[in-house]
Amino acid sequence: MELLKQRILKDGKVIGNDILKVDSFLNHQMDVQLFNEMGKEFYKLFADKNITKILTIESSGIGIACIAAQYFNVPVVFAKKTEAKNLDSDAYLSEVFSFTKGKTYTVRASKNYINSNDNILIIDDFLANGKAVLGLADIVDQAGAKLGGVGIAIEKGFQDGGKLLRESGIDLQSLAIVTSIQDGEISFAE
Amino acid sequence: MELLKQRILKDGKVIGNDILKVDSFLNHQMDVQLFNEMGKEFYKLFADKNITKILTIESSGIGIACIAAQYFNVPVVFAKKTEAKNLDSDAYLSEVFSFTKGKTYTVRASKNYINSNDNILIIDDFLANGKAVLGLADIVDQAGAKLGGVGIAIEKGFQDGGKLLRESGIDLQSLAIVTSIQDGEISFAE
Repeated sequence: MELLKQRILKDGKVIGNDILKVDSFLNHQMDVQLFNEMGKEFYKLFADKNITKILTIESSGIGIACIAAQYFNVPVVFAKKTEAKNLDSDAYLSEVFSFTKGKTYTVRASKNYINSNDNILIIDDFLANGKAVLGLADIVDQAGAKLGGVGIAIEKGFQDGGKLLRESGIDLQSLAIVTSIQDGEISFAE
Repeated sequence: MELLKQRILKDGKVIGNDILKVDSFLNHQMDVQLFNEMGKEFYKLFADKNITKILTIESSGIGIACIAAQYFNVPVVFAKKTEAKNLDSDAYLSEVFSFTKGKTYTVRASKNYINSNDNILIIDDFLANGKAVLGLADIVDQAGAKLGGVGIAIEKGFQDGGKLLRESGIDLQSLAIVTSIQDGEISFAE
């Protein structure tokens, strides 16, 4: 998506060779007009999938997911992150290892809001190693729902999450794939 | 707001005499169509305030804030909750005591995204004792920005946050004020 790539080039901040900060428009301050263009793009990509619900994860996926949901005309469920591993008979739980934080957390979504009739679109702001999306996909699976696809704003193409998800047969669509951020210069996949 | 009150009566779950669960449409599963009606209502209430930015707090305020921002045509900043009290010269920090969790956490917003030219609308899903909103208002104050108002989806009128904020001169507008949830019955202020 050209608009997003241009915005990353304009406002993204590179730290070292693997950190791309986009908190001026994506995941701290949120440019809702840009989110609307992204939402339209996600709808173009997944319009034929009969999506019944969007699933995301707190916190920075929520804004994008809600704006996109307006085009699909479906509700959003956001999975909650918790450090507790306590059993919760009313919720689907999945464990996710965070490389950034160096620890495992549990993602949790109520059984009331995802069921076997659902065709789920997972939306998130970033894809790096893919662990968070795999946790959400596991919840979709536990619910007996169908995973219609995964929509990501920015994929870090130099980490292995994208490869992992595509090889497992998931319809993954990223609006911008950053292939490298060497020496402060950001490159994108075509 | 009649639509929200009706939805609370239809889908809200009362636990004991002080817990109102609305996670089927507001803060776990999110009804984005309802959020749009709420966004329009917030715009009606604050249209004359020349709002330049919406400030909310992760996680459940984000969806409502983003949808509402479309009517104000302004960006959203979401403050982050952290347990760390470490100094961060790039961020405004404020401490908030959570009665629900029985502990103090720090809310954090980057200094890059709120400044003295801003006229801020704070939006959140729930108001109970008002501590989270006071933390956000403190951040607005530290930034030298103006607090244009506070928009809340559901105010628990039987807790003291609303009184506290109104008495301190804040323009607080709640779309539904629950005055009691005694014996499973939900009552609203007029």
